[in-house]
Amino acid sequence: MQTDIEIARQARCLPMPEIAAMLGMPDTALLPYGHDKAKISQDFIKGLGDRPEGKLILVTAVNPTPAGEGKTTTTVGLGDGLAAIGKQAAICIREASLGPCFGMKGGAAGGGRAQVVPMEAMNLHFTGDFHAITSAHNLLAAMIDNHIYWGNDLQIDDRRITWRRVMDMNDRALRDIVVGLGGVTNGSPRQGGFDITVASEVMAILCLASDLDDLQKRLGDIIVAYRSDKSPITCRDLKADGAMTVLLKDAMQPNLVQTLENTPAFVHGGPFANIAHGCNSVIATRTALKLADYVVTEAGFGADLGAEKFLDIKCRKAGLAPDCVVLVATVRSMKMNGGVAKSDLGAENVAAVTAGCANLGRHLRNLQDYGVPVVVAINHFVSDTDDEIAAVKDYVAALDAEAILCRHWEQGSAGSLELATRVAEIADSGVADFAPLYGDDLGLFDKIDCIAKRIYHAVEVTAPPQVMAQLREWEAAGYGNLPVCMAKTQYSFSADPALLGAPEGHVIPVREVRLSAGAGFVVAICGEIMTMPGLPRVPAAETIHLNDLGQIEGLF
Amino acid sequence: MQTDIEIARQARCLPMPEIAAMLGMPDTALLPYGHDKAKISQDFIKGLGDRPEGKLILVTAVNPTPAGEGKTTTTVGLGDGLAAIGKQAAICIREASLGPCFGMKGGAAGGGRAQVVPMEAMNLHFTGDFHAITSAHNLLAAMIDNHIYWGNDLQIDDRRITWRRVMDMNDRALRDIVVGLGGVTNGSPRQGGFDITVASEVMAILCLASDLDDLQKRLGDIIVAYRSDKSPITCRDLKADGAMTVLLKDAMQPNLVQTLENTPAFVHGGPFANIAHGCNSVIATRTALKLADYVVTEAGFGADLGAEKFLDIKCRKAGLAPDCVVLVATVRSMKMNGGVAKSDLGAENVAAVTAGCANLGRHLRNLQDYGVPVVVAINHFVSDTDDEIAAVKDYVAALDAEAILCRHWEQGSAGSLELATRVAEIADSGVADFAPLYGDDLGLFDKIDCIAKRIYHAVEVTAPPQVMAQLREWEAAGYGNLPVCMAKTQYSFSADPALLGAPEGHVIPVREVRLSAGAGFVVAICGEIMTMPGLPRVPAAETIHLNDLGQIEGLF
Repeated sequence: MQTDIEIARQARCLPMPEIAAMLGMPDTALLPYGHDKAKISQDFIKGLGDRPEGKLILVTAVNPTPAGEGKTTTTVGLGDGLAAIGKQAAICIREASLGPCFGMKGGAAGGGRAQVVPMEAMNLHFTGDFHAITSAHNLLAAMIDNHIYWGNDLQIDDRRITWRRVMDMNDRALRDIVVGLGGVTNGSPRQGGFDITVASEVMAILCLASDLDDLQKRLGDIIVAYRSDKSPITCRDLKADGAMTVLLKDAMQPNLVQTLENTPAFVHGGPFANIAHGCNSVIATRTALKLADYVVTEAGFGADLGAEKFLDIKCRKAGLAPDCVVLVATVRSMKMNGGVAKSDLGAENVAAVTAGCANLGRHLRNLQDYGVPVVVAINHFVSDTDDEIAAVKDYVAALDAEAILCRHWEQGSAGSLELATRVAEIADSGVADFAPLYGDDLGLFDKIDCIAKRIYHAVEVTAPPQVMAQLREWEAAGYGNLPVCMAKTQYSFSADPALLGAPEGHVIPVREVRLSAGAGFVVAICGEIMTMPGLPRVPAAETIHLNDLGQIEGLF
Repeated sequence: MQTDIEIARQARCLPMPEIAAMLGMPDTALLPYGHDKAKISQDFIKGLGDRPEGKLILVTAVNPTPAGEGKTTTTVGLGDGLAAIGKQAAICIREASLGPCFGMKGGAAGGGRAQVVPMEAMNLHFTGDFHAITSAHNLLAAMIDNHIYWGNDLQIDDRRITWRRVMDMNDRALRDIVVGLGGVTNGSPRQGGFDITVASEVMAILCLASDLDDLQKRLGDIIVAYRSDKSPITCRDLKADGAMTVLLKDAMQPNLVQTLENTPAFVHGGPFANIAHGCNSVIATRTALKLADYVVTEAGFGADLGAEKFLDIKCRKAGLAPDCVVLVATVRSMKMNGGVAKSDLGAENVAAVTAGCANLGRHLRNLQDYGVPVVVAINHFVSDTDDEIAAVKDYVAALDAEAILCRHWEQGSAGSLELATRVAEIADSGVADFAPLYGDDLGLFDKIDCIAKRIYHAVEVTAPPQVMAQLREWEAAGYGNLPVCMAKTQYSFSADPALLGAPEGHVIPVREVRLSAGAGFVVAICGEIMTMPGLPRVPAAETIHLNDLGQIEGLF
């Protein structure tokens, strides 16, 4: 069997101007980056104005398991399937983070015959967007310490600096550091640390900003520190917002590449799906909607985290509304949710599949509560048995919903025609009547409580008094109308990664809250959330190399 | 009068394929990055094989003063001048560092009517090369701490880790830090720090490597730490060289842009000119020489540092030999070398000019000692008087050399025709008979001594016993044949930045030595060398912004 990279190397890519032409874009709209990727110019995007928008299809999934669900693969396969049935389609996905590629993470470009290319570039520097975000973030950090060094006119309390530094690398030694050592010329010693770039608020901002003006406004709004009287100091106070916008000027332009079957693919932005909202950029989605009749996009992690944020943060703030939601499940992941260990996934176990479907069923109902039609896509693995597949279909049918088997991983668009046909029908039908889960005017804690009870099915949300006090302070300061961004484990509806299936009676403990005033949400952290990963004992980096043909090996 | 950026915005740039065609390159040789810059593909470069090479012209300068000398401006002006007299010419310069642009440094793309465009891109992310170097450098750093975390099989002595981290930002707070705080999961606390990216040995390696194989070999040779028995641990021991090469694959391809007059410009690499050798990449120079009849390049700082390293490190190691050297001086810099304060530069002062010419004269003689013909280029400033210009010309004539007045800043190629004509004559004459200053087999300390006495005209070199012992250890370990890379102030022939002109009787104190085993040189540090700059009280970043037209303001 061919590996993903072997399949990708055989891709017959079309020149980028031909991909652009599929969406009615002239050559002049493209800023080429090599021959296989391009940015779409800001000027062209501005010129799109109020053009009518196509149908928006969200791909989300059950809670992730080590078995793999194939959300990106399904996004690609569905896009290719729509194209194959004669629709003008495009997909929108996130860019990959560089750091984890050297640890043990696989690529983020789909798999099998449902991939986006060039996959090597996508998993490395791509068009440099993440590097630009790193630079902009760290310029602000340098300007904070520099301001203190030169007299601290703004009276920054160096114990209350919330702005850390970032690097697109898995480097645990940088999580918690002391900076400014070595004497007077190096500044004042203080605690600091690095997060991985995808955890930067600048990343979240770039992905939510509607244009460069909005980008600069949001950057200016970032709260970087507090005075000893707890009054906030913003990026704008430090006059860093202009230079940061300059650094991000090119990065704000969406990237265009293609699938193995030459469907246009927008790949832009990639915020964390825990402490941020986990979706590709608004500007990419919006641009795609103005150019294509059908836009397939995805959200991070499972539907409890990813789809909830897509709907309650991105759609709410950008005025988007999905016309259809595709909920991806696999027989294998249902089995694991039903209690089967990863090592036993090879053996048929219909009972476990049915038991695990409780996870799928809950996500399905949750999504329907948003007023959007949902189709379940069963992403086929070669080891799945007919009875196991039937068990999933039966379970979904019993909920008055439909599940469609897809073989895009194995067959490309030929394996997703049924799904594509049905999704197009639903999207065209206009049955979707999307509304976010909660109103802007609900209190911050009540928003957390609403998500925890209605999406996670928790019985209670707990929070220490200082968290409650902090939320009230932010409400008093005018931030009460922001949505909340939940940071909890992606593996369970609960805050306990071991509780698979559809747990009941659990409590969601809010440990800490953070204000992302530029991005425009309040982060509620439930449990331990790692914002700077480490490398494993044997990092993938040890085997990544160029082969004798100059091709990259070991990256996936 | 128009600013540099206003002039640059009026540039009539040719499409990159037309620039490539001037050098006989087909479209397929280019990897476009937007419409105004491109990389030259590795495959095309390989195919150039043993093609005969053009003439190599080095532009260097007197010791830099706050008055400005215009070395890059003259490099551009001479390239345009050569093109204007009908020669097939190209220029080769370094890429700019991002960090200093937010402090107070001007652009690195020339000035006036002698500029390389697009200057904004060149001073920002350009084609991402420096970001790739930052990533490769920091991957190695992460793998060192990760190795220790997982049991330290290589027995790295964490007090003897020499590999720091890098960031392309002026951030003094990162110079001296403690990493690995916060408990077991974050690793072991140890001292560390960040340098600016241009100070990375990876940068020096990229600029000296002949191809990707050589790049990987050199990366593998980097010494990152020592065991407690002082035996070295290399990048190859950590198995990081393959992944670093993958990260640098695209960055190894030279960038092609153009001057305001559409002369092809190779802009590639930019190592520090103190702890590294300060020249653009060997691969760019070599590629340019195979494509153009005349290649004009420059070296960092003044001739005592920049040209010495260009000749003794880059030319020696890459087998290059300059056919002509252009030594840039200005009336203003001669005045400052003659004792005039910057605030008094506006007033005519012929005596000071003549006195300051001692600096010019010494550089001239030094360069002639390498067996290369030297022409002095007087880079004209509008405030220069005829008598001041005559004073420089007279001084140079008295040394049996020639000085040519150039007005390329004001006039473009029309102002450099005389210089271009003379330089072409000299290069064509074949009078150059280049030999490096010292042989490979000279001892390491003797190499330092040789440079200090013959180039700096010092009376003595001093070094503490541990430095002498270290040099002997490296000789015993097989590194004795490496050239030395001097790190001292660029403002004086001596180690004291205040000693202008042509000081005599000074002593060069070697404070510390470092082994850059991958780059292939031993660094001798004489005085305080800053490898991570800080931002000034009012950083340029505070005024950098996008104007209403979306153009970048304040960057220069």
